[in-house]
Amino acid sequence: MSDKTPKTGLSRRAMLGATAGGAALLGGASGARLALMGGAAGVAATAASTTAAHAAGDGINLAPGELDEYYGFWSSGQTGEMRILGFPSMRELMRVPVFNRCSATGWGQTNESLKIFEEGMLPETKAFLNANGKRVHDNGDLHHPHMSFTDGTYDGRYLFMNDKANTRVARVRCDVMKCDKIVEIPNAKAIHGLRPQKFPRTGYVFANGEDETPMINDGSVLDEPDKYVNFFTALDGDTMEISWQVMVSGNLDNTDCDYQGKYAFSTSYNSEMGMNLAEMTENEMDHVVIFNLKEIEKGIEAGDYQELNGVKVIDGRKGQNKKYTRYVPIPNSPHGINTAPDQRYVVVNGKLSPTCSVLDVTKMDALFEEDADPRSAVVAEPELGLGPLHTAFDGKGMAYTTLFLDSQMVKWDLDKAVRAYAGEDVDPIVSKVDVHYQPGHNHTTMGETKEADGRWLISLNKFSKDRFLNVGPLKPENEQIIDISTDDMKVVHDGPTFAEPHDVVLVRRDIVNPVNVWDRNDPMWADTRRQAEADGVDIDDWNEEVIRDGNKVRVYMTSVAPTFSLEKFEVTEGDEVTVIVTNLDDIDDLTHGFTLNNHGVAMEVGPQATASVTFTAAKPGVYWYYCQWFCHALHMEMRGRMLVRPKGV
Amino acid sequence: MSDKTPKTGLSRRAMLGATAGGAALLGGASGARLALMGGAAGVAATAASTTAAHAAGDGINLAPGELDEYYGFWSSGQTGEMRILGFPSMRELMRVPVFNRCSATGWGQTNESLKIFEEGMLPETKAFLNANGKRVHDNGDLHHPHMSFTDGTYDGRYLFMNDKANTRVARVRCDVMKCDKIVEIPNAKAIHGLRPQKFPRTGYVFANGEDETPMINDGSVLDEPDKYVNFFTALDGDTMEISWQVMVSGNLDNTDCDYQGKYAFSTSYNSEMGMNLAEMTENEMDHVVIFNLKEIEKGIEAGDYQELNGVKVIDGRKGQNKKYTRYVPIPNSPHGINTAPDQRYVVVNGKLSPTCSVLDVTKMDALFEEDADPRSAVVAEPELGLGPLHTAFDGKGMAYTTLFLDSQMVKWDLDKAVRAYAGEDVDPIVSKVDVHYQPGHNHTTMGETKEADGRWLISLNKFSKDRFLNVGPLKPENEQIIDISTDDMKVVHDGPTFAEPHDVVLVRRDIVNPVNVWDRNDPMWADTRRQAEADGVDIDDWNEEVIRDGNKVRVYMTSVAPTFSLEKFEVTEGDEVTVIVTNLDDIDDLTHGFTLNNHGVAMEVGPQATASVTFTAAKPGVYWYYCQWFCHALHMEMRGRMLVRPKGV
Repeated sequence: MSDKTPKTGLSRRAMLGATAGGAALLGGASGARLALMGGAAGVAATAASTTAAHAAGDGINLAPGELDEYYGFWSSGQTGEMRILGFPSMRELMRVPVFNRCSATGWGQTNESLKIFEEGMLPETKAFLNANGKRVHDNGDLHHPHMSFTDGTYDGRYLFMNDKANTRVARVRCDVMKCDKIVEIPNAKAIHGLRPQKFPRTGYVFANGEDETPMINDGSVLDEPDKYVNFFTALDGDTMEISWQVMVSGNLDNTDCDYQGKYAFSTSYNSEMGMNLAEMTENEMDHVVIFNLKEIEKGIEAGDYQELNGVKVIDGRKGQNKKYTRYVPIPNSPHGINTAPDQRYVVVNGKLSPTCSVLDVTKMDALFEEDADPRSAVVAEPELGLGPLHTAFDGKGMAYTTLFLDSQMVKWDLDKAVRAYAGEDVDPIVSKVDVHYQPGHNHTTMGETKEADGRWLISLNKFSKDRFLNVGPLKPENEQIIDISTDDMKVVHDGPTFAEPHDVVLVRRDIVNPVNVWDRNDPMWADTRRQAEADGVDIDDWNEEVIRDGNKVRVYMTSVAPTFSLEKFEVTEGDEVTVIVTNLDDIDDLTHGFTLNNHGVAMEVGPQATASVTFTAAKPGVYWYYCQWFCHALHMEMRGRMLVRPKGV
Repeated sequence: MSDKTPKTGLSRRAMLGATAGGAALLGGASGARLALMGGAAGVAATAASTTAAHAAGDGINLAPGELDEYYGFWSSGQTGEMRILGFPSMRELMRVPVFNRCSATGWGQTNESLKIFEEGMLPETKAFLNANGKRVHDNGDLHHPHMSFTDGTYDGRYLFMNDKANTRVARVRCDVMKCDKIVEIPNAKAIHGLRPQKFPRTGYVFANGEDETPMINDGSVLDEPDKYVNFFTALDGDTMEISWQVMVSGNLDNTDCDYQGKYAFSTSYNSEMGMNLAEMTENEMDHVVIFNLKEIEKGIEAGDYQELNGVKVIDGRKGQNKKYTRYVPIPNSPHGINTAPDQRYVVVNGKLSPTCSVLDVTKMDALFEEDADPRSAVVAEPELGLGPLHTAFDGKGMAYTTLFLDSQMVKWDLDKAVRAYAGEDVDPIVSKVDVHYQPGHNHTTMGETKEADGRWLISLNKFSKDRFLNVGPLKPENEQIIDISTDDMKVVHDGPTFAEPHDVVLVRRDIVNPVNVWDRNDPMWADTRRQAEADGVDIDDWNEEVIRDGNKVRVYMTSVAPTFSLEKFEVTEGDEVTVIVTNLDDIDDLTHGFTLNNHGVAMEVGPQATASVTFTAAKPGVYWYYCQWFCHALHMEMRGRMLVRPKGV
């Protein structure tokens, strides 16, 4: 047997001066600045490493008209949207606004989108927004988009994603590629890691709360760390209601789950519940929390919970009830956690440790049933390089781990890693390749499912520096495609992206089958349809109606390229005006829009869709509205006039 | 001599059923729908045409690490941002928020960006926004980005662009690639065509008002077309102040100017000043308005203007003062207008006419000085195909025109077109190639300057349909690269884009030289610096200050990866809190961010930049702030706490 003492020492010395910086921080401001600049210089030095240029092409450049083989569903980090790229061509096919305000589609402005924002909003957020003169948060930090599963692989129903900035979870419908649910999570703060249940289906959506806060967060507690807690949340992927939460020790980073439907697991980079850098990085060992789903469900059933802001909360803190959770010590501030397609191994990425720790899901029953040593679930802990953050798989037994500090991808053999940990003299590392620069997440085609196909690997790098034309102080990130068909991985494409290439899933194209035209009875505009019916207006036929209801005016019109059914309408200064547009065109790609000049109003109206927007008419005069989505040779002529009469005239 | 009667008949019959649709519109709603569906079906039929697939590559696919040869500055249409792409690789290098709200950078939220929005805002818009509980319009319709010129070519100083949605013109600084001016244009409505003066330098920025409105637009006039006017605006590109406006007849579409500094010219698709589709397309002939810059300047000098909402307005309506403007009849609803690099010919694209009309700038003096027939400036009018919208040039005498209805690009010989018009039996058309589908703007590398290099042509197509994986009812547009090195143009790349590939300029990379790190004295945060000085805070050094000023609290902190100088701060419920962050890191690509959890607050802080954001604290509790721009291996630990104490406690 090899020495099973976790290796943590190397990381503490080699870490970009991070630990030194942490220590220096305690010694005063100017010292800290100098020490930390050392860290930054480390980054710059890495940038100087180069890779011999590969020939362009390598099977990723498509001829005009050729279709990609995979859909890439991309996070956008702090941009707050979800992106759809064709893969491997890396061409952006669509931006799906989720947590952000979108000028083009009217997301965050149309009544239909505002309803989605507001339905899932907590009362205190409504009060806060009201005090700040806003209706919705129009920013987000979307880290992790993941598709719904059935029986261990993607099923093409939904995509789920988190907002770290404002503690939300959202869902995108894959039939129309629009967001239909945004849920603000109570108790937890800063939803970070997110994964859907793989088996038997989704089912649960697991969501980590990253930021610890006082359990009763009423402003009376700041400096009593023992009163701080953190929350793990399970939502129901079908209803998007919160099923339950588990109160945990340590903040939570990333999460994943097994292929058996029994366990979910989350890393914690700050098991110390520290409040500053030095405290957060104090311990050599942090942990992975394993959640026992069946026991939690039984506990909820049995009433073993407290209700906190309307949610049933199980106490799974360390040393509390061992039925629900187990804490596996892991070196050191572990970050990513990834279940292999072999449906057995779970790789925990050490971040401040040069190691990955491999958990064996078949050993987890014993932790709960026999109170086995939590470390007995660890079956390998290979030393891979500096700053391991995330691991992807090819379905053939190989793992690919990003090394943030080394700016490399390391390919390693899972089986050999287990054998080495058991004492055999084998080296699990197959090869390494430079990436440019500082990789975070990585992902293989279908690699997070049991259908991993081992064709392509992508490295999502946080810095691009000199890899693209200079565009000023703000640089793009860099997403690199790696051909993993041979042992020596080959970087074949550099892909710049606007903030931020946080995470991605790469899905075989046969799994995703969106419609081309909306169903007229889509729930998206059900409220709008109900109002129309109350107003006696048939929004499904070519017509126009202006309904006055006190100072509320509802303006109904339809569109067929290149005209709106309504050429002009009149309102009075101070009226609350709602414009409802139905696009009667039912041809692929024939989207219309409604933009009202000088009124900040613009919305997309897809083929057969209905959309509406409300504003207060406050500027007397004539204002043209027009179709902003190019629809016809006479597109520019597709316009009409709103007259706002002065009040009292 | 050939028959010089402009050819307009073909267009009226062949136009996608457009005229038929227009006529049917007069006959009632259901008939109109059927007639217009014919138009839409025409679009679908075109979609069935195919092009033999070309081999991938063709010199546009770069190896990892290779730099592009050109900067592409892209409009985004209704998305409201400017995009920077590497060309010809077509990789998006940066999104520059301009008229839109940006979640990632805080554009539209930071005090520094709000100042830019508000400085150029008209009082009535402020009042409207106030009545609607908003501070800024957070949407735009950015059609035309153009770079500043010196002596007939790009000079790398600024980019100028229009917002059709809310009647604005903006400027982006090329040193930092950030917007520094947004000016709302009075009198005019819906700024559409925009071009900078080419000679001797920019100088003027010319901006077309598209939508005609009553001259005194106070809500008392709707159905008196003779009271409607339109405005052509000249801004000073250095100060972004409005130099003057010219009142014109007919709405204005696109604009360009000469290489001699004497004339600007604008197309009008609705010389009728019609109020609906049938009226707008009634005339066979519309016009180009030629603006005599020297005479206008003299007129302003001599006081021959009226002041309207603070702007000096020259009357250049048809039949008014012929010193200032001339109206050249052009068939039929002309759209694009493009001055050739030969510095002589100006191509006017007929849209509803199958022709392009070529104006000769050397014949324009005679229109003003000798009252020559305006049509005498027309020296060619070749019939090119259906729906000519825009023309680009290779600097070698060839013109490339998009044919919207034919879904083609036509290459033609300018000189032969002039000779044919003069009676010679020559065919100016060289070749045609299918594009996919319905092209609007096109552009050649450096093609709008005297340094046109004839290397690449891009076609910005409005429909993509079946060219990419299906992403639901909303499809991407399609931007295709065409190799123009041979007579038979070759489509070598399909590039999908989110709304909307409206226009682009392709600029040689040696012309653009942005900085990597901000200057600490940048005017962007001059106001913020002044406030800090008044507060006795040195924002240039590692420190932290919390200044209370009544219920206003200013929180100053700095950042050096991976820490903020301030680990926590306390405010009281109801306080107006301003957080000011200075990034002291001065290394390329080391951008930090400040996101305040559950408060909808997020902003970018570039290397050596200062940024600030203001909100009302209304939720008692502990809230973490964090750096959302990945900066360091300990990035996740870069966070701190705001405590909001309940009021009265």
